[in-house]
Amino acid sequence: MERGSSADGTGTERLEAFSDAVMAIAVTILVLEFKVPEGPPEATEWRLEHGLAAQWPSYVAYAMSFVVLGLTWASHHRVFRYIARVDWRFLLLNLLFLMVVAFVPYPTALVAKYLASETGRSIAVTFYGGLMTAFAMTYNALWWYASAGGRLLVADVDPQAVRRVTRQFAVALIGYSVTTVVAFFQPVLSLVLFVALAMISAIAPAIARQTPGDRGDPSLRSG
Amino acid sequence: MERGSSADGTGTERLEAFSDAVMAIAVTILVLEFKVPEGPPEATEWRLEHGLAAQWPSYVAYAMSFVVLGLTWASHHRVFRYIARVDWRFLLLNLLFLMVVAFVPYPTALVAKYLASETGRSIAVTFYGGLMTAFAMTYNALWWYASAGGRLLVADVDPQAVRRVTRQFAVALIGYSVTTVVAFFQPVLSLVLFVALAMISAIAPAIARQTPGDRGDPSLRSG
Amino acid sequence: MERGSSADGTGTERLEAFSDAVMAIAVTILVLEFKVPEGPPEATEWRLEHGLAAQWPSYVAYAMSFVVLGLTWASHHRVFRYIARVDWRFLLLNLLFLMVVAFVPYPTALVAKYLASETGRSIAVTFYGGLMTAFAMTYNALWWYASAGGRLLVADVDPQAVRRVTRQFAVALIGYSVTTVVAFFQPVLSLVLFVALAMISAIAPAIARQTPGDRGDPSLRSG
Amino acid sequence: MERGSSADGTGTERLEAFSDAVMAIAVTILVLEFKVPEGPPEATEWRLEHGLAAQWPSYVAYAMSFVVLGLTWASHHRVFRYIARVDWRFLLLNLLFLMVVAFVPYPTALVAKYLASETGRSIAVTFYGGLMTAFAMTYNALWWYASAGGRLLVADVDPQAVRRVTRQFAVALIGYSVTTVVAFFQPVLSLVLFVALAMISAIAPAIARQTPGDRGDPSLRSG
Repeated sequence: MERGSSADGTGTERLEAFSDAVMAIAVTILVLEFKVPEGPPEATEWRLEHGLAAQWPSYVAYAMSFVVLGLTWASHHRVFRYIARVDWRFLLLNLLFLMVVAFVPYPTALVAKYLASETGRSIAVTFYGGLMTAFAMTYNALWWYASAGGRLLVADVDPQAVRRVTRQFAVALIGYSVTTVVAFFQPVLSLVLFVALAMISAIAPAIARQTPGDRGDPSLRSG
Repeated sequence: MERGSSADGTGTERLEAFSDAVMAIAVTILVLEFKVPEGPPEATEWRLEHGLAAQWPSYVAYAMSFVVLGLTWASHHRVFRYIARVDWRFLLLNLLFLMVVAFVPYPTALVAKYLASETGRSIAVTFYGGLMTAFAMTYNALWWYASAGGRLLVADVDPQAVRRVTRQFAVALIGYSVTTVVAFFQPVLSLVLFVALAMISAIAPAIARQTPGDRGDPSLRSG
Repeated sequence: MERGSSADGTGTERLEAFSDAVMAIAVTILVLEFKVPEGPPEATEWRLEHGLAAQWPSYVAYAMSFVVLGLTWASHHRVFRYIARVDWRFLLLNLLFLMVVAFVPYPTALVAKYLASETGRSIAVTFYGGLMTAFAMTYNALWWYASAGGRLLVADVDPQAVRRVTRQFAVALIGYSVTTVVAFFQPVLSLVLFVALAMISAIAPAIARQTPGDRGDPSLRSG
Repeated sequence: MERGSSADGTGTERLEAFSDAVMAIAVTILVLEFKVPEGPPEATEWRLEHGLAAQWPSYVAYAMSFVVLGLTWASHHRVFRYIARVDWRFLLLNLLFLMVVAFVPYPTALVAKYLASETGRSIAVTFYGGLMTAFAMTYNALWWYASAGGRLLVADVDPQAVRRVTRQFAVALIGYSVTTVVAFFQPVLSLVLFVALAMISAIAPAIARQTPGDRGDPSLRSG
């Protein structure tokens, strides 16, 4: 049976397209958070270059969320290669996952606003971390449901590859949870850790695939 | 004849892609309603965590509309499996349906703003309910037009399956209409009912498909 | 040669997908123009239902632009059925066309704001009409370029069908231009005419295709 | 091996679709920068036509960014015709490129706001130029990585065609860098140059393809 476009409508194709669209839109509307800087009406001394420089928290937050969402898209794509069909419970779990993903622009705006502020910084970054943890949780739930007993997986998938993905996702969930706790005490450090976690999660499979034992594994290619 | 991409341009493929895009965008711009909380200029006592907690109506409204729109997408997808071709009247009806769907972010913002307010709550939720009812009406009209006399349906569709879908949609329309009336008197209760209605509508076919008589029905799979 | 996905990258497929996406986004962000009504701070008499009712120009503008953009999408789709390949000049013309289409949310917001205002109404609706005329002009230019001497058309296209489309588009351009002049003197009447024009343009081919001579014309189906 | 949809998930298809979506959204949300003009509360003399005319910098910025982004899409499309597969490093470079592309609406709004202002104009246009340069840099990086040693290219690509693309992109990068320096001293001139550069980059291949030697080159058609 071909993956993705099965005739009975349980294929993954349209679900992937919908998820892709949501992630592409979420990543592209991040820019709407930026406000053109304006000097106070009476300030003749104000200069645009200072206004732009003062926006550095917005640039940081933008780049961070763009990378996290972009890598999420890539990872989501990778997972769907193992999935042969969807059912209603999987669809609802994916919807829950997208609900978290589509929410990213808001905590991003929050971090952009409060990263340079002594009083709000901890809370803003912890809120961001809470979303990252929710994101890892829904992503793990999605995978657990699909892979438990090979429920929705392609027929000839390698059980070892499945276990490896499960382990990677669980480690990522632990990493995001711990970093969220760190966020409250060391907000700036935790932002670095969030991006590092997203990058490690994304790059991990690339490394794994370069080991000889894995390269010969046909299940990884049975799209 | 193959469904979806018929050579004379009356296929459903591009209409589905357009509808999917509108629904994906509507669901993803829901987040734009959120405004980063800020304390009043003079308030040294104000704390960000209180500002975030005070936004609970926005979280409720976001989650609710996300689930309703996501399930609408899934349901729209399911209906199109039965449809073999489109004509101009169907296209106009689908446009009417999308006009209602794409409007959802506004009543969502309205509920987010007034859910915690004594005076506006009833009106805001009733307005939301009015949209849900309009949504169910256009959706029913779409299906009635396509299915009447099998006008636009796939050739070998099971008449019983068609009647079942017609019945489910009619029940949903009644449910949304009644809940909109409830909204005026019991706004909070009605919000719970709206989500429940969306979930029941979406899950219903999953249950139906698990009965033996249905599983063996080839018309459901003739995509 | 197959239409749409020719191997040398001159096919129409990706251009259609890009155009579809732009039109779907433009239509869906129309809703962002709506602002949740709020009473003045001191007004204890203000009621939400009055605020919502006072927004009627926004509802009118939203519905009008949604229908116009939706029918534009349908019409664009129809034209591309005759087009076999694209070149760089066509691509630039299509870009110009999309630039006008993607701009629609702004004059829509303008009409929504000034439709109920004595002083600004004429200008706002004339501005809207100017865009509609620009839209018809770029659309005609697109078609003239593609169809002149059958430059980019499918090989077996019926010359009569091409001439009919050319005529329809020219009539629409005249209609939009005249209505824009009307807009300055009779703004409300012109809004009705804009929607009527969009609907007539869209429905015209449906009528045409039902005549026997046309139905038997194979060129219309050689997608 | 077929390009684009290779079974092991390293094909370019979904990456192209994601990139297309980001570019289509970025181009379409440019319009959100426009604000409906309003007279000051006490001004009975204020007229809407003057408010609209005073927005000319917004129209200029909108048209400029629309053309630049639209041509970027077309160029991105062209490059992907040479690319047979993607790996994680390419994916990250493409993400970096999209991060710059999706950011375009912000400098556009900046130029729209300060183009008519003596004091901010130079900085605003230089900022815009900085983004254009970053855009050319990430685009070059993307191509260098893919083409070095034919790493990700289609098997039968013509080395001469590859070198020509490499040269064109390098020239564009130099052009954007120089124009950004010009922007600080001659902001208006530099805006004209940015659009000219985008158009030349886009039209160059069209001219190249019309030379006889190139037309006969099969590598250009091995999509």
